[in-house]
Amino acid sequence: MPTVPPAPKAAEAVDVTALLERGRTLTTPVLRAAVDRLAPPMDTVAAYHFGWIDAQGRPADGDGGKAVRPALAVLSAEVTGAAPETGVPGAVAVELVHNFSLLHDDLMDGDEQRRHRDTVWKVHGPAQAILVGDALFALANEVLLELGTVEAGRATRRLTKASRALIDGQAQDISYEHRDRVSVEECLEMEGNKTGALLASASSIGAVLGGADEHTADTLERYGYHLGLAFQAVDDLLGIWGDPEATGKQTWSDLRQRKKSLPVVAALAAGGPASERLGEILAADAKTSDFANFSEEEFAARAALIEEAGGREWTADEARRQHTIAIEALDAVDMPERVRDRFTALADFVVVRKR
Amino acid sequence: MPTVPPAPKAAEAVDVTALLERGRTLTTPVLRAAVDRLAPPMDTVAAYHFGWIDAQGRPADGDGGKAVRPALAVLSAEVTGAAPETGVPGAVAVELVHNFSLLHDDLMDGDEQRRHRDTVWKVHGPAQAILVGDALFALANEVLLELGTVEAGRATRRLTKASRALIDGQAQDISYEHRDRVSVEECLEMEGNKTGALLASASSIGAVLGGADEHTADTLERYGYHLGLAFQAVDDLLGIWGDPEATGKQTWSDLRQRKKSLPVVAALAAGGPASERLGEILAADAKTSDFANFSEEEFAARAALIEEAGGREWTADEARRQHTIAIEALDAVDMPERVRDRFTALADFVVVRKR
Repeated sequence: MPTVPPAPKAAEAVDVTALLERGRTLTTPVLRAAVDRLAPPMDTVAAYHFGWIDAQGRPADGDGGKAVRPALAVLSAEVTGAAPETGVPGAVAVELVHNFSLLHDDLMDGDEQRRHRDTVWKVHGPAQAILVGDALFALANEVLLELGTVEAGRATRRLTKASRALIDGQAQDISYEHRDRVSVEECLEMEGNKTGALLASASSIGAVLGGADEHTADTLERYGYHLGLAFQAVDDLLGIWGDPEATGKQTWSDLRQRKKSLPVVAALAAGGPASERLGEILAADAKTSDFANFSEEEFAARAALIEEAGGREWTADEARRQHTIAIEALDAVDMPERVRDRFTALADFVVVRKR
Repeated sequence: MPTVPPAPKAAEAVDVTALLERGRTLTTPVLRAAVDRLAPPMDTVAAYHFGWIDAQGRPADGDGGKAVRPALAVLSAEVTGAAPETGVPGAVAVELVHNFSLLHDDLMDGDEQRRHRDTVWKVHGPAQAILVGDALFALANEVLLELGTVEAGRATRRLTKASRALIDGQAQDISYEHRDRVSVEECLEMEGNKTGALLASASSIGAVLGGADEHTADTLERYGYHLGLAFQAVDDLLGIWGDPEATGKQTWSDLRQRKKSLPVVAALAAGGPASERLGEILAADAKTSDFANFSEEEFAARAALIEEAGGREWTADEARRQHTIAIEALDAVDMPERVRDRFTALADFVVVRKR
């Protein structure tokens, strides 16, 4: 059973795998060339983070991730009639900002693993994680601004706004950890900052580089922002009910980390017996120190309560709502039908994915 | 006795104190307004870092530092005939980048004190130091790019280059800590990155915002870069022989921190009996764990050896050399005589200061 029922059908003709592959193929060499500019040992540390080498410095064939952002960035260039290549510096800049935030967030959150590998701060120490994160952030602006065009200045300004939102989201995430209760609205705001803002950049930056007007850029940002919220809602579902084989994470991953993700906050907000029982259990859990030793059954019981209280269904609905808003946003601008179909297909992919 | 003999005289008419005060007065309110944009609790953490509030959140009248960078930034606007105010967003951006690097460097270096106060990571924790540093870095670009002009794009591009140099310099600084020997050239390169690059930005960013051509901007950067090296050479002298009353640091501060600063590397490179003896002592020190308990006399003996080997004189000469290169660089551009005199006076101030 898919986590979210199939979304409204996009034009059948779009090959999403090929679209993702195109974004990856166009972006990766330019991204690697940018990272190669870093002075040693930062170049090596960054290459480890991206999965291009292992901890011993040997070439590795890292999991490049789903590559939704690069696909969106090069696609967005086509909105203006420009070649997909026009979006590449934007795709690279967005990837650099995303990875800057991963490097710093992993350290702040004390996360020891990412994509089945030790995180940078575990392997190379906290100072390198800070330093290389800073360098990637600076490099993102450099890659755009060295284009020397007015469009590049506009793209950088928008990306800077998204970066600030990303940082705000992380600040919220940290502060929520220390609180007993987080409202659904607060959770959505945080996810909008942490995921929506950068997906908004990815979905518009190629168009901005291609000379799109402000209305077109704003519209594509709106598509990307809501797609980001849909993406995160699905991520939150997978974080509890995802298949470990597919996600590469532990069972009940987000529950183990006591994450106040959407299904949890929605279940707590729902009221009723299951909601109240869940609230009592999680309040007790918050005071427990041997949480890591809980059995599968104990996590499964919590997941069942979240589902019973309606948190799972609410989050699946939310993914569909945000998916719909994203696709409808596209109506506000003229673009080639072929390009619109691709945006729609990528949105569909985001909500039906299993990893 | 001044650390460095008085530099060549600038026009008597320039009131450096007033020039520094002008930079501070123009810049501080705009800087505070920018920092106020940060979401809680980052605004509070940043305000603590800048010395505007104390650790309990009460208003404080913090030591704003020498404010050489803001003075340079607003002065540089006048090169183009623009009002000093034109340079203010540049001054603010440079201050934001400088303070981003302080926040992160203090954490990476484990420094617990800055300007007689506990550092941010000591008071608010490592996560806030990382996060607020990131936010200030993003804010620097935001403050410039929201001007929306071509000049702002150029200024951001140059500031981004300087930020990358700053990060490179910190990477070098960290790597040198783990090495027995650092050459004079390596030390100068690191100091050029850590101090020269941002002073180069400060000295040119107002002019760039005022529409200066590339030659003028490059020339002012050259002035600022060498002034930065002079500044750092004086800092390195004060770090060993500075008057604690004036600097606010401990006696023999840099020796206590085992810093491989210019006087030390120059003394080690000089050869001769004192140089060799110093090399033996520092090699032994590197293996010592109770270094913090050394007596005043033990540090004084090391300082005497550095001086005997010529490290103090070489560094003072270097400060003068760089000061001269900086001032002579100004000859490459036309500017009002009054503005040139002020650049010269600020350069003189940098090398004769005692704190």
